[in-house]
Amino acid sequence: MTEIKRRINEWIKEHREEGTDLLQRMVQAPSTQGNEAGAQAIVAEKLKEMGLQVDIWEPDGADLKKHDYFYSPRSDFSNSPNVVGIMKGTGGGRSIILNGHIDVVPDGDRNQWDDDPYSGAIKDGKMFGRGVTDMKGGNVSLILAMQALKESGLSLKGDVIFQSVIEEESGGAGTLAAVLRGYGADAALIPEPTNMKIFPKQQGSMWFRISVKGRSAHGGTRYEGVSAIEKSMIVINHIRTLEEQRNARITDPLYANTPIPIPINLGVIEGGNWPSSVPDLVKVEGRMGVAPEETMEQAKQEMADWLVQLEERDDWFKEHPPILEWFGARWVPGAIDAEHELMNALIHQYRQVAGEDPVIEASPWGTDGGLLTHVGETPAIVFGPGATEVAHYPNEYILLDNVFSTAEIIALTLVQWCGLEVGQEETHQEKIANRK
Amino acid sequence: MTEIKRRINEWIKEHREEGTDLLQRMVQAPSTQGNEAGAQAIVAEKLKEMGLQVDIWEPDGADLKKHDYFYSPRSDFSNSPNVVGIMKGTGGGRSIILNGHIDVVPDGDRNQWDDDPYSGAIKDGKMFGRGVTDMKGGNVSLILAMQALKESGLSLKGDVIFQSVIEEESGGAGTLAAVLRGYGADAALIPEPTNMKIFPKQQGSMWFRISVKGRSAHGGTRYEGVSAIEKSMIVINHIRTLEEQRNARITDPLYANTPIPIPINLGVIEGGNWPSSVPDLVKVEGRMGVAPEETMEQAKQEMADWLVQLEERDDWFKEHPPILEWFGARWVPGAIDAEHELMNALIHQYRQVAGEDPVIEASPWGTDGGLLTHVGETPAIVFGPGATEVAHYPNEYILLDNVFSTAEIIALTLVQWCGLEVGQEETHQEKIANRK
Repeated sequence: MTEIKRRINEWIKEHREEGTDLLQRMVQAPSTQGNEAGAQAIVAEKLKEMGLQVDIWEPDGADLKKHDYFYSPRSDFSNSPNVVGIMKGTGGGRSIILNGHIDVVPDGDRNQWDDDPYSGAIKDGKMFGRGVTDMKGGNVSLILAMQALKESGLSLKGDVIFQSVIEEESGGAGTLAAVLRGYGADAALIPEPTNMKIFPKQQGSMWFRISVKGRSAHGGTRYEGVSAIEKSMIVINHIRTLEEQRNARITDPLYANTPIPIPINLGVIEGGNWPSSVPDLVKVEGRMGVAPEETMEQAKQEMADWLVQLEERDDWFKEHPPILEWFGARWVPGAIDAEHELMNALIHQYRQVAGEDPVIEASPWGTDGGLLTHVGETPAIVFGPGATEVAHYPNEYILLDNVFSTAEIIALTLVQWCGLEVGQEETHQEKIANRK
Repeated sequence: MTEIKRRINEWIKEHREEGTDLLQRMVQAPSTQGNEAGAQAIVAEKLKEMGLQVDIWEPDGADLKKHDYFYSPRSDFSNSPNVVGIMKGTGGGRSIILNGHIDVVPDGDRNQWDDDPYSGAIKDGKMFGRGVTDMKGGNVSLILAMQALKESGLSLKGDVIFQSVIEEESGGAGTLAAVLRGYGADAALIPEPTNMKIFPKQQGSMWFRISVKGRSAHGGTRYEGVSAIEKSMIVINHIRTLEEQRNARITDPLYANTPIPIPINLGVIEGGNWPSSVPDLVKVEGRMGVAPEETMEQAKQEMADWLVQLEERDDWFKEHPPILEWFGARWVPGAIDAEHELMNALIHQYRQVAGEDPVIEASPWGTDGGLLTHVGETPAIVFGPGATEVAHYPNEYILLDNVFSTAEIIALTLVQWCGLEVGQEETHQEKIANRK
């Protein structure tokens, strides 16, 4: 393996500039929801250059909508294609899906960016731009891994199915479309921005909205009303208790270093419409984490049951229970067995390249991994070069060194997982023999 | 006085239908901000019919803006006239301003109205419609009071200055314009909806906005952020304590039956923009009551000083103090002396007509009374027929009997306050003498 490792390492060193250029071009093609075509064209062109069997198609919204696991604010995906490139194996090996999303979240407040959000600017070994860390850097690691193998003359036995999907940020419709199109494999790797940590378990999440009622009155006689703001504070504290309880149950050592493994985040609050009136309605919206081993239905039920107990905190809720709704995007949780062969391969190759043990944790956020695991029957691991903490923020960046280390680690992992074509291994043995 | 009382009482009985019709026509002319012209035309026509000296003018926004006490979301009052009608006295008597606003608040949610919000429908002795209680019913009481005196042949010594003003609901620009136009008097009456209570003191109020900061993070790793929602809850509790302290200081017996004399109402809350993110900004808007005896500047200072103490509740506020702004409409507090002659007159005539003592309290909300008191140097009492609890709400209504009782009480109060023309009193004496 040492020879293979050396070959891949050298190839990647020699192709850093080319890889950096590819990433920069991809970042400079803004691919927010609905605008993915440009970036996808760059990817498709690259895959074709590499000689892969390329499949480009626009997901069929009407069809997707029928699926239980479909979620998107839209159902028309015209001009929003998925791209799949297959590096066919020679046969008899394990297959793998390499999945990365092409869509990026909006730039946010432009005033907070030092450069244009799509600059692709490089400073001090970092490349900047919306999507570079989440997750075009990871996508480029996948592409470079495949290209390194191909151009180093290393043929794998198992198929490698590279997927550049839309809609991950909006609920997974792109990956779902790929699953329904028939793409499956023995396992999958998703290089979402993990700061080079390995996540064999991924948290799911769902969005909820809770509407809390009050009773209107003139602000000058506010005691005649019931403030929905005050009542919402009781609800918020109640939810905090639920979060504590849910997390107290988590004993998985993968979460040992996570302060709150399965958080319930309150992200939006909105209520009342007149400073001089007692507000009679407040809505809070948030994100409930779903543990890798529970189902979304279990989590929903627990929240609903918990809210009923508000009556015990305050009589008001007996006659005016808050209304709970689930809406918007949700990410299915996923878990791969800790002893899964792909885990072993990835951990081993990480050590080989990085010279130290990887950090292994459960992910704090959702990815398309759950969809691949539960709908695609393709267990997935999440591992990538991006910097978690800057994903979705201004001045998003990635450490270019990580992109290339990841490419190297993944290339070697593919060799171990998919296996090398018979004959290549002999060549390797011959070389060792000949050196002696 | 008994003869005068009888005359007025009869006149009003005979003119109930006419008065009801006038009120209905006024209600059916929707006069929300910017749309006052139609209702004002009805008023102006009525005043002219009564033979009053009528002044109609559109306030000059450019001029008004220079005044410290000006507040309105607009500064262009084209097609939004004030109307003033003067019933000239014969001389030597005290003058009075009878002030009522013509503007009404928006209808709100139409689905909650049983009839059209401007129906003027009459059922069971009540008339329904936006503005009927706040405060067209009161305005009609004023008009009927003046008309009763005129048509009963009763000439007053002092001038009666009737004002139908715009913009009360938006901060008093109409009354301010009337003050700046030169209208002043020895005292004023404002028939806002008090449920027939007499308010010699009126609360002021100001709108505030408090912006509370947090620190953004992904919801799945919410512990890396600081929730502005959580911090805003601390601020809200802190404000509740301030309200308790301010109200503990209130010893005025006029507030004996008021649960919270000077409330601080939180009316609007808004923060965060993404369920999956820790919110980094929450804004609360509310209304701070200003006690009749304090100034608005004192109240503002107390709030500012109090917010500084948040540091003691939570370290976060040391580096991230919330930002306090005062914005929007404010109502100047006002107070007339409890022994003021107009108070005595009004209380006396109330007893005469109602046969029982009036309820005397401090008002829980602002009116233009403070402007008249402090800027116009015209001390004001608030007393009117409308139903406080339905002002600004759907299915707003007024008890028609109260409109007519109020007209009677005010007419008699005008007689006592302004004094009757010399000669008329003799006629009255003559009658008494003649009966003996």
